[in-house]
Amino acid sequence: MRLLYEANIEDIAIGAAVLGSGGGSDPYIGKLMAREAIRQFGPVPLYSLEELADDDLVMPVAGMGAPTVLREKLPAGDDIVRAFHTLAKYAGRGARATMSIEAGGMNSIRPIYIGARLGLPVVDCDGMGRAFPEIQMTVLTAHGISASPFVMSDERGNVLLMNAVSNRWIETFSRSCVMHMGATCAIALYSATVAQLKEAAIPGTITLAEEIGRTLRQARRHERNPVAALCQAIGGFLLFRGKITDVDRRVVAGFARGDARMRGSGAFADQDLRLDFQNEHLVVRIDGEYIATTPDLIAVLDSETANPVTTESLRYGMRVAVIAIPCAPQWREPAALALVHPRYFGYDVDYIPVEERFRS
Amino acid sequence: MRLLYEANIEDIAIGAAVLGSGGGSDPYIGKLMAREAIRQFGPVPLYSLEELADDDLVMPVAGMGAPTVLREKLPAGDDIVRAFHTLAKYAGRGARATMSIEAGGMNSIRPIYIGARLGLPVVDCDGMGRAFPEIQMTVLTAHGISASPFVMSDERGNVLLMNAVSNRWIETFSRSCVMHMGATCAIALYSATVAQLKEAAIPGTITLAEEIGRTLRQARRHERNPVAALCQAIGGFLLFRGKITDVDRRVVAGFARGDARMRGSGAFADQDLRLDFQNEHLVVRIDGEYIATTPDLIAVLDSETANPVTTESLRYGMRVAVIAIPCAPQWREPAALALVHPRYFGYDVDYIPVEERFRS
Repeated sequence: MRLLYEANIEDIAIGAAVLGSGGGSDPYIGKLMAREAIRQFGPVPLYSLEELADDDLVMPVAGMGAPTVLREKLPAGDDIVRAFHTLAKYAGRGARATMSIEAGGMNSIRPIYIGARLGLPVVDCDGMGRAFPEIQMTVLTAHGISASPFVMSDERGNVLLMNAVSNRWIETFSRSCVMHMGATCAIALYSATVAQLKEAAIPGTITLAEEIGRTLRQARRHERNPVAALCQAIGGFLLFRGKITDVDRRVVAGFARGDARMRGSGAFADQDLRLDFQNEHLVVRIDGEYIATTPDLIAVLDSETANPVTTESLRYGMRVAVIAIPCAPQWREPAALALVHPRYFGYDVDYIPVEERFRS
Repeated sequence: MRLLYEANIEDIAIGAAVLGSGGGSDPYIGKLMAREAIRQFGPVPLYSLEELADDDLVMPVAGMGAPTVLREKLPAGDDIVRAFHTLAKYAGRGARATMSIEAGGMNSIRPIYIGARLGLPVVDCDGMGRAFPEIQMTVLTAHGISASPFVMSDERGNVLLMNAVSNRWIETFSRSCVMHMGATCAIALYSATVAQLKEAAIPGTITLAEEIGRTLRQARRHERNPVAALCQAIGGFLLFRGKITDVDRRVVAGFARGDARMRGSGAFADQDLRLDFQNEHLVVRIDGEYIATTPDLIAVLDSETANPVTTESLRYGMRVAVIAIPCAPQWREPAALALVHPRYFGYDVDYIPVEERFRS
């Protein structure tokens, strides 16, 4: 166990936004919320799964919707508390801890915020090791853990509690409701015992996020190339450097969908990149050839600072680096891969792990 | 208190379908379900509100969706039981009785079905005295009774429990989910104490439905004109007799919407009628002039037998009588009228009580 203080939040938020693969929302807002909550209520204990009892119950929280919307509609935080309490009341037993369901600038931070407000520990693991756009897209689903009971709540005070026969059905119902909630809400879901999570969850994500954030911060301080330092630290691959020449983005069916076009520079001069996203970055093509796909992580970084750029922040003229990071190995097992395969998202391409593409 | 036996169900189902104003679903299916349940589990006690204690809790049940769909997707009944039990579990106290939320061939009968299966009394009242298409359209809403906690369940086993800040929000969320449920599901909602219902509900609807059914049955047996007998018994007005010349019907946004055109015969020769519906009949125009509108009841009856024709059964060539019946007086109070005014449904016309139209 260690305590998370205000000082830890900056690195976690930035690092989680790298892992978020363009999704999980902008780290800036999450950072402010969590720092304020820690200032007010004190530091938050971060436990590893091994430090908890096998039958302890963990209740993850997250935000849902189109990240684009959060930029204009800041979350007050009461919606997350309401969702969490409703799930706890329904479960009929207290939660020992909370955790994040996906890595991302906001969705790694929301559990820390709830931890501070409710005096609850956070577990150092998550359900994706990155971010994905749909509810059922977790390695927990592949291990048979139910997203139900699932709670969603908006800032008005509406609370919906769903028990569905599959995690895909939760996605269907909740997606159609979140649109009516203004494309953003708080959710509590996938409650599971520590024993289940030891089997299924991706461990150490908060600590990994913090390391990524620290790597970037220190590289900048020592005037080393932060993009290169990051790739070295986490086994990432530089796919591209260049300038964003066009962004097509729209809120469709409760998601932020679209694509960004880039024109290469330096070693990538004369190359054209196309990045497709649905809340998260899904596939990258250079001159029409796939070069990285889901479930491997695709991050867009500011060319100078290596600060992660989420999908809602992509805009014309930005100079960026695009990197790919091998996904957690759990995603490469068949049951998990089927949930997030490029073909699931409509791309007619096999999944080839990014490190294999770069080996050849 | 009196007991409802199989023999009572036929009259209730037919009479309730008249009150249903084209909605509340086909009486035939409901009749079969309730008769089978009574045969298996015994008769169902029907109580008036006065026979219950003021703090007894009543939990209504109903079906939701596009009635058109029920003709092809028969309800098994387990979805209603699931919805009812979920609401009871959430309320944390047992229900003393159930009741119907709207009058209609199915929706007057579903509570009797649940009563038989669960050994639970039914209260002789409802929330509309007719049927209306949207969740918030009850006189209960006008009296401040919440439709939340609201439960919806489909035949797959999905269960959604909603607590919304208004009954209109329940409509919004549940309507978007029922579409994913194949446009049909069971709901439990508007739980209220007997004291609240004495204030707000429309009393005696089951008994009124049974009287209407009996009137029609006896008129047919004695070879009297059943349409005239019905109008006399309940103060209805004959608007039209004729033949259906066209029906335009589609399932839109979880509703069966459309209109039927008719050509008059006999005293109505050379007149053209247009009947608009959204699950229920909303307005009738003859030669372009409004002649009856919501919230007054508009019923289409088979010209010979006076059997009610629900919106999903309207078809080309049918010979029908169209009648209007003054709505329950509760609907004419401003707060209630605003919920179901012709203008709410997009018709630019004032509401004039049908008996005033016919007085002039």
